Amino acid sequence: MKRALEEAHRSLWHAPPNPAVGCVLLPTAGAPILGHTQPPGHRHAEADALARARELGVATAGATVFVTLEPCSHFGRTPPCADALVEARVARVVVAVQDPNPLVAGRGIERLRAAGIQVEVGLLDREAREINIGFFSRMVRGVPWVRMKIAASLDGRTALDNGRSQWITGAAARADGHAWRARAGAVLTGIGTVLEDDPRLDVREVETPRQPLRVIVDSRLETPPGARILQSPGSVLIYAAQDDVVRRAALEARGAEVALCPGPSGKVDLSAMLRDLARRGINELHVEAGHKLNGSLLREGLVDEFLIYLAPKLLGLGREMLRFGPLQSLDEAVGLRFLEVQPVGEDLRIRARPPGRERF
Amino acid sequence: MKRALEEAHRSLWHAPPNPAVGCVLLPTAGAPILGHTQPPGHRHAEADALARARELGVATAGATVFVTLEPCSHFGRTPPCADALVEARVARVVVAVQDPNPLVAGRGIERLRAAGIQVEVGLLDREAREINIGFFSRMVRGVPWVRMKIAASLDGRTALDNGRSQWITGAAARADGHAWRARAGAVLTGIGTVLEDDPRLDVREVETPRQPLRVIVDSRLETPPGARILQSPGSVLIYAAQDDVVRRAALEARGAEVALCPGPSGKVDLSAMLRDLARRGINELHVEAGHKLNGSLLREGLVDEFLIYLAPKLLGLGREMLRFGPLQSLDEAVGLRFLEVQPVGEDLRIRARPPGRERF
Repeated sequence: MKRALEEAHRSLWHAPPNPAVGCVLLPTAGAPILGHTQPPGHRHAEADALARARELGVATAGATVFVTLEPCSHFGRTPPCADALVEARVARVVVAVQDPNPLVAGRGIERLRAAGIQVEVGLLDREAREINIGFFSRMVRGVPWVRMKIAASLDGRTALDNGRSQWITGAAARADGHAWRARAGAVLTGIGTVLEDDPRLDVREVETPRQPLRVIVDSRLETPPGARILQSPGSVLIYAAQDDVVRRAALEARGAEVALCPGPSGKVDLSAMLRDLARRGINELHVEAGHKLNGSLLREGLVDEFLIYLAPKLLGLGREMLRFGPLQSLDEAVGLRFLEVQPVGEDLRIRARPPGRERF
Repeated sequence: MKRALEEAHRSLWHAPPNPAVGCVLLPTAGAPILGHTQPPGHRHAEADALARARELGVATAGATVFVTLEPCSHFGRTPPCADALVEARVARVVVAVQDPNPLVAGRGIERLRAAGIQVEVGLLDREAREINIGFFSRMVRGVPWVRMKIAASLDGRTALDNGRSQWITGAAARADGHAWRARAGAVLTGIGTVLEDDPRLDVREVETPRQPLRVIVDSRLETPPGARILQSPGSVLIYAAQDDVVRRAALEARGAEVALCPGPSGKVDLSAMLRDLARRGINELHVEAGHKLNGSLLREGLVDEFLIYLAPKLLGLGREMLRFGPLQSLDEAVGLRFLEVQPVGEDLRIRARPPGRERF
């Protein structure tokens, strides 16, 4: 199953909105055959492994199959994998974790068992769920998994007082950040960052087969039609709180889609925005915003994970990571749990989550 | 030599102002004999190992001796170790690093060689120097090694806006912080922290044979005679910029020593203070102060190392680690190098230094 998980990782950048799944087929004779989810509309992991077996002329009858997610049981853009495994007459299927998709949710396993295949479920299930945490989130909670990326100095500054922030972290950390962008369904920022930094927010520092959707929280449609975020390859979606026919037309002429999502006090309703993004198939939402939008998302309890790059430097007075507070008591602090700490180039990468956040 | 370094570590908390030294004596027959620096006025590491050999009735003639610092050649509170090794008729001495003390500085090695003992120098010298980085600093630079301890939230806050800071980090990190206090010659804080937090600043969370000197930077002698820092066991030294006979008398009556160290604009001259602390035998100075004194020490380039505990929590608006800036350009950032990152309980401990700071 560990190898199947490694295969799943090979799908991470191209699988969205599908889950990234890996499969290892052990024929009764011969070497293991690997498969993983191909881009949307193409083969799922099991179908991929079976196709490879056919290409190699390897008999699949009696084989054992390890797969990191329950084989699908429904016709989507591709035929059901459970049926393909039955047809291939495999003897045993080991499934890491059940599919949370209500269209599947155990039915794939049932179909296999009904065909007399021995099925086991639960091997390395935590790891398998973790790879597709965004897919699970969208299916179970109806919102994407929100991962907030912050690059800061050791004293917690994301920019100088004058707004300068390029670059606080080093090249290795920036490339690593782009790899995290690459696996996300969408990259989100706020109008403040668009106006101040004019970022492109596409994936450039690593090669990717797919550009995530770029999303701007822009209550009053202030994104300049000449902004670089509109020029980059891939699509742009702008959430506004109030319509403006002229500005909207200018942005649409630049290829952007504008969605109205009004909340109280003239701001975008962030929770409703997340539900809308999930409906659009966004599993993981990668946030790269400034202290204001970061603070708003945090205050509304919408952040699932922090991906923080700390540079070995001190900046003194300047912009904070997230604007919220001041708190009155330390009991009100936002509690996290360190998930992982790793050097990336000269910087540190820290992943942290509110405790138990992945339990849903 | 690795074992000798382990022995040296056993002296760290009681050796100051002496260096912490370890020694391993390999007799021509029998098991290795270990020794390490005893409290001031008692045996140095080599004398300690030789005494043990005598107690055990082990012959030292022809032995090989590993010692983490050059054997001393002068009469201090104890007789010279080089002479003791000559008398013990050892055959070979392997020295990790030469003693930076101008009273020794190669003379111990010369004395051994003159007596026909084979001497090698330089084995694990970096590690050996690092253990006594404060002693080297005092001997070579004439100032203590300044290690600044900061406990902060992941977003870089050391206290809430209302000053509350107890506790941001967990019990394990606090105990670890006391272990770092224990090895320091002195613990330094500012009058702001004394007035706001009324800390004791002694070593409590770990058992120690010695309390470091407690030092307060208190330009106008505002330390309340009832402050807890004056009540704790051990000595207190207050640096002031201007004298005040009445206040001084009250503080002296509480057992504190007051030293005048005036600098420009009515503040304590921090550089002069460090030179004075070195003259008083302080090797490592452990700073636990607020953002103002931290900022002043940083701006004057006096900080050698940061010992930062990051708690897995976010505090939002509040006190920063060090008050300096605002900078105009990212090139002006204080550059550091991460030395070590380690989980301590639920928190992270990060040690960082300005690059090359240990080269002197």
